[in-house]
Amino acid sequence: MNNERFQKQLEFIIEIDKLKQIYRQNLVIGTRRHENDAEHSWHLAMMAILLSEYAAEQNVDVLHVVKLVLIHDLVEIDAGDTFAYDEKGYEDKADREQKAAERIFNILPPDQAEELMKLWCEFEAMETPEAGFAASLDRFQPLLLNYNTGGHTWKKPGVVSEKVHKRIEPARTRAPQIWEYATDLIETAVAKGMLKP
Amino acid sequence: MNNERFQKQLEFIIEIDKLKQIYRQNLVIGTRRHENDAEHSWHLAMMAILLSEYAAEQNVDVLHVVKLVLIHDLVEIDAGDTFAYDEKGYEDKADREQKAAERIFNILPPDQAEELMKLWCEFEAMETPEAGFAASLDRFQPLLLNYNTGGHTWKKPGVVSEKVHKRIEPARTRAPQIWEYATDLIETAVAKGMLKP
Repeated sequence: MNNERFQKQLEFIIEIDKLKQIYRQNLVIGTRRHENDAEHSWHLAMMAILLSEYAAEQNVDVLHVVKLVLIHDLVEIDAGDTFAYDEKGYEDKADREQKAAERIFNILPPDQAEELMKLWCEFEAMETPEAGFAASLDRFQPLLLNYNTGGHTWKKPGVVSEKVHKRIEPARTRAPQIWEYATDLIETAVAKGMLKP
Repeated sequence: MNNERFQKQLEFIIEIDKLKQIYRQNLVIGTRRHENDAEHSWHLAMMAILLSEYAAEQNVDVLHVVKLVLIHDLVEIDAGDTFAYDEKGYEDKADREQKAAERIFNILPPDQAEELMKLWCEFEAMETPEAGFAASLDRFQPLLLNYNTGGHTWKKPGVVSEKVHKRIEPARTRAPQIWEYATDLIETAVAKGMLKP
């Protein structure tokens, strides 16, 4: 056994335990507790497995989608969660997250550090079929949680339906059936007064 | 689009949000907060991806291992978490979990309900290479967390090193290098006074 390699892998596995302390804006359904990134990533991985039939591209590589969603928020261990509708936060988001990716992924042995860095860049670029589908799920899941918690996040200042529609837009071409459902849900939320038109 | 099918899938995805409220005995590192099953499942999926080279059987199907660990605790939404060293709780665990599996998985369309039921039975039986490796990870991860939280769970009444060794025993043949590391860690924990000999 290559002990140095295993030690690096374990150090990484212990480091990423911190993802359980990175809280998002939305709540866990039926509670007043904010969801954390580790729970969110698990939920997306379940959705990737159960909803892959709705990816626009046939025969999307499910393991690849699962890897993308499992690792996509690891950079937030250092960079923190940037609220989807926080325009100021988005100004330096890319820079903060790039630094975080370099520190965190490089805890791993070089081959795995490179693999995770590539996966994360792929997720961010949203260009491959797998990344497009993964991003669609990442935008659909909080919508489901918001709808089922009385529109919690949507009630924050400055959030209007146009911005929520824009957020789900990547799903229009990458997972059109999910996009169609999501756009209907947004309009229902507006009709129910959960979201400002 | 088959709306009835999609509705069932969404109902399931919303139902399993409850896994985020099922708390385990061990703590999240660096906190006094108990880990929940959704976070635990995410952590195992990351370990499955990063540590598959240590599975005893060559070329273990990583997507299959990931599916097993992502779904293995869903039954606890109804059946609750049974503490690994709670002998009384184990008496009716199988019965409680079987009922839970039938209710929860059958929210899905029949083909996916059947797939998840099969996966869960496979995980519980620990017979296939993938289930053996998944179970090894499921027993190794809390050991890592306990060691890194001052032996939190190990300090409960009745927990002694022999029981912890027994718990990691399936890894001896399914992931021997992980088992070897784990047994050393248990002895170090005893030497440090985190765990009763």
